[in-house]
Amino acid sequence: MIHTNVLSDLKNRTAQSQKALKIGLFGFGCVGQGIFELLEQSKGINAEIIKIGVKNQDKVRSGVGGFKSVQPLLTYNAAEILYNPEIDVVIELIDDAEAAYEMVTTAMREGKAVISANKKLIANHLEELLALQKEFDVPFLYEASVCGSIPIIRNLEEYYNTDFLSSVETICNGTTNYILTKTAMEGLTYNQALKQAKDLGFAESDPTLDVQGFDAKFKLIILVLHAFGVILKPKKVLNYGIHNLNIADTIFATENGFKIKSLAKAYKVGEELVAYVAPHFVGSSHEFYNVNNEFNAVQVAAQFAEKQTFIGKGAGSHPTASAVLSDLAALRYGYQYEYKNIGQELTYNPKLIHKVYFRYRNPSDLMGLNFLNITEHHQGHELSFIIGEISLENLIEVNLNEREGVFLSFF
Amino acid sequence: MIHTNVLSDLKNRTAQSQKALKIGLFGFGCVGQGIFELLEQSKGINAEIIKIGVKNQDKVRSGVGGFKSVQPLLTYNAAEILYNPEIDVVIELIDDAEAAYEMVTTAMREGKAVISANKKLIANHLEELLALQKEFDVPFLYEASVCGSIPIIRNLEEYYNTDFLSSVETICNGTTNYILTKTAMEGLTYNQALKQAKDLGFAESDPTLDVQGFDAKFKLIILVLHAFGVILKPKKVLNYGIHNLNIADTIFATENGFKIKSLAKAYKVGEELVAYVAPHFVGSSHEFYNVNNEFNAVQVAAQFAEKQTFIGKGAGSHPTASAVLSDLAALRYGYQYEYKNIGQELTYNPKLIHKVYFRYRNPSDLMGLNFLNITEHHQGHELSFIIGEISLENLIEVNLNEREGVFLSFF
Repeated sequence: MIHTNVLSDLKNRTAQSQKALKIGLFGFGCVGQGIFELLEQSKGINAEIIKIGVKNQDKVRSGVGGFKSVQPLLTYNAAEILYNPEIDVVIELIDDAEAAYEMVTTAMREGKAVISANKKLIANHLEELLALQKEFDVPFLYEASVCGSIPIIRNLEEYYNTDFLSSVETICNGTTNYILTKTAMEGLTYNQALKQAKDLGFAESDPTLDVQGFDAKFKLIILVLHAFGVILKPKKVLNYGIHNLNIADTIFATENGFKIKSLAKAYKVGEELVAYVAPHFVGSSHEFYNVNNEFNAVQVAAQFAEKQTFIGKGAGSHPTASAVLSDLAALRYGYQYEYKNIGQELTYNPKLIHKVYFRYRNPSDLMGLNFLNITEHHQGHELSFIIGEISLENLIEVNLNEREGVFLSFF
Repeated sequence: MIHTNVLSDLKNRTAQSQKALKIGLFGFGCVGQGIFELLEQSKGINAEIIKIGVKNQDKVRSGVGGFKSVQPLLTYNAAEILYNPEIDVVIELIDDAEAAYEMVTTAMREGKAVISANKKLIANHLEELLALQKEFDVPFLYEASVCGSIPIIRNLEEYYNTDFLSSVETICNGTTNYILTKTAMEGLTYNQALKQAKDLGFAESDPTLDVQGFDAKFKLIILVLHAFGVILKPKKVLNYGIHNLNIADTIFATENGFKIKSLAKAYKVGEELVAYVAPHFVGSSHEFYNVNNEFNAVQVAAQFAEKQTFIGKGAGSHPTASAVLSDLAALRYGYQYEYKNIGQELTYNPKLIHKVYFRYRNPSDLMGLNFLNITEHHQGHELSFIIGEISLENLIEVNLNEREGVFLSFF
């Protein structure tokens, strides 16, 4: 039996530590409770929650039901977690991105591994978070931040690093997709569908981040880092929402054989990278045509693997908890993201020209929009629209999300 | 900054070896050539093919085109690879499962890491291959053996080990799916579609393993090991093929709103495991309804992640090469499958009763089949069929693949 040097090197992996990982958890909403529950049930992960940081202890106490063992773990003093020498891993699951930023960065500086699901925090601070991981040599994992239970970040990191990626395309906002499904398939108005989404807990009381495409943009920016190694500033990337969709747009789509889906897309054009979030007309042969309601999907195209589609639940307590737990399991074998694609010679190009449908009320709605190659201009009593080409940069400049009474969809 | 013990342990990972992995490759068909090409292009993997074992050097010489550098690497003496102390990794990509078995097991005994795409070899020798990995502490990776470029084995190993899986369902034979797509969507007969698949290179000259469900069964057995930790013997698992499909069956499916898809399924029923390969009637709301032609798909259901669907190219030189390359990249950080689910208290149960459609010609075709709860029995000049329930065990006993003039599909 011959052991060559390289292979012997490969085998010298540190045996997994047998001691339980000690966890400090921030936030005890649905996801936090799901994680607590699953860790109690699962024999697979040797990890234990020893502190739970909450803003309002009374609120949690009333909600925990079977979690009798939770009460002694609660604290509302973040320092009891962040500066606790017993705690190895901080799991951050709170809504407030600014407070989360403090927790995550402090925990990393304290040498703790951190797991977060907070896409806004991550997308807004990519450079700093990369630097902290390097400086303090701590793992920072956030699979749950993009498409919930769909294991897309880990797959981009580990599986596609050998292949040449050309595009990533995703339905990554469950609220938006739910509303679009209801408007297309049940004929609801935007407001009716939004109300239904709120009633079912799919939409927050202020849905701006979701319906105007900000949430999807944060997720796209995280995907772009792992897929293409490029750090995009949120302000430089177009996000156009669905909040001005009306029945006429839905009918236009249906009559032309399309569904409207909000897509976040990034792809290479030569040595340039394009990225944007916008409603798109999607035909029945597209893999996303039947991705309905709160489901999410990601499609990756690569030179060798060709097109890969992942479909799953993108939000909700259990799918999100599942993604957090998989990060925790990965920590047990010392896993860290390697960001292997950083250093590619790719330049971000926001000047791409794209074919769009633009519905409007009167000529003043067109102010500042520079359409090129208009192929159809319909002006009617009921409906006026232009089909033509326009640059992403132009759409960012006019801040289209704030313009009422108009709606735009990409072809 | 505090470094606790557990986290410090986790961080003590061996740095990746900087030396190039030396590869011995068996087989230089489409996949092998794809790998050679991609390794030359990719800066991501520090690995080099130093020997290529082929059966017929002349055949390769004529086909290599641009691969001038290939000629000096060729050998038809397997020992030059298997006993070569310079070689760290053996990649086995030959058709012959018996010869592949010799190569794979010898390489492992010689302390080499092995990558294989040979599902037949793997499914038939699971226990021995597990034992060899343990005894010689060598990685044996085979992502390319199941669903080509879809990263399903690695995801089952790494991502779902924290979750409680309940089922795995897959379209994993591209030849079969191509034929079924053409019969359903273009009205071709089975034989016309098979001929087309052969002409396009999707089917082999002897398609038995594919169209009778053996290939899918081998893949299912590999998935079951990683998903549920159970080792199934191929003989004990039902595989019923599509080779006796006729137009009447296709029309029956279409009229009832279904497509016929060959599915390989495994799922838990309490503490028991069920597994089988058979044609199924699939409705338009099923995620696999639009998985057409040579595409593959896998759906995993888990307690927390809920349903996850992966769709991609299951065969072909580039998708398969992509999966092999990702295994090679994983070897660089010492990756080995951990088979974490082995040891679950799951018993294989082949006695499950399933609702089926059974089309036949005359009463003697029913010999040995014990239908329960017959809900429809149609006897006609053109078409006779039974809709009723039957046990998997009964279908295995009568060896239905060998019975001509009949066709069965699961609901």
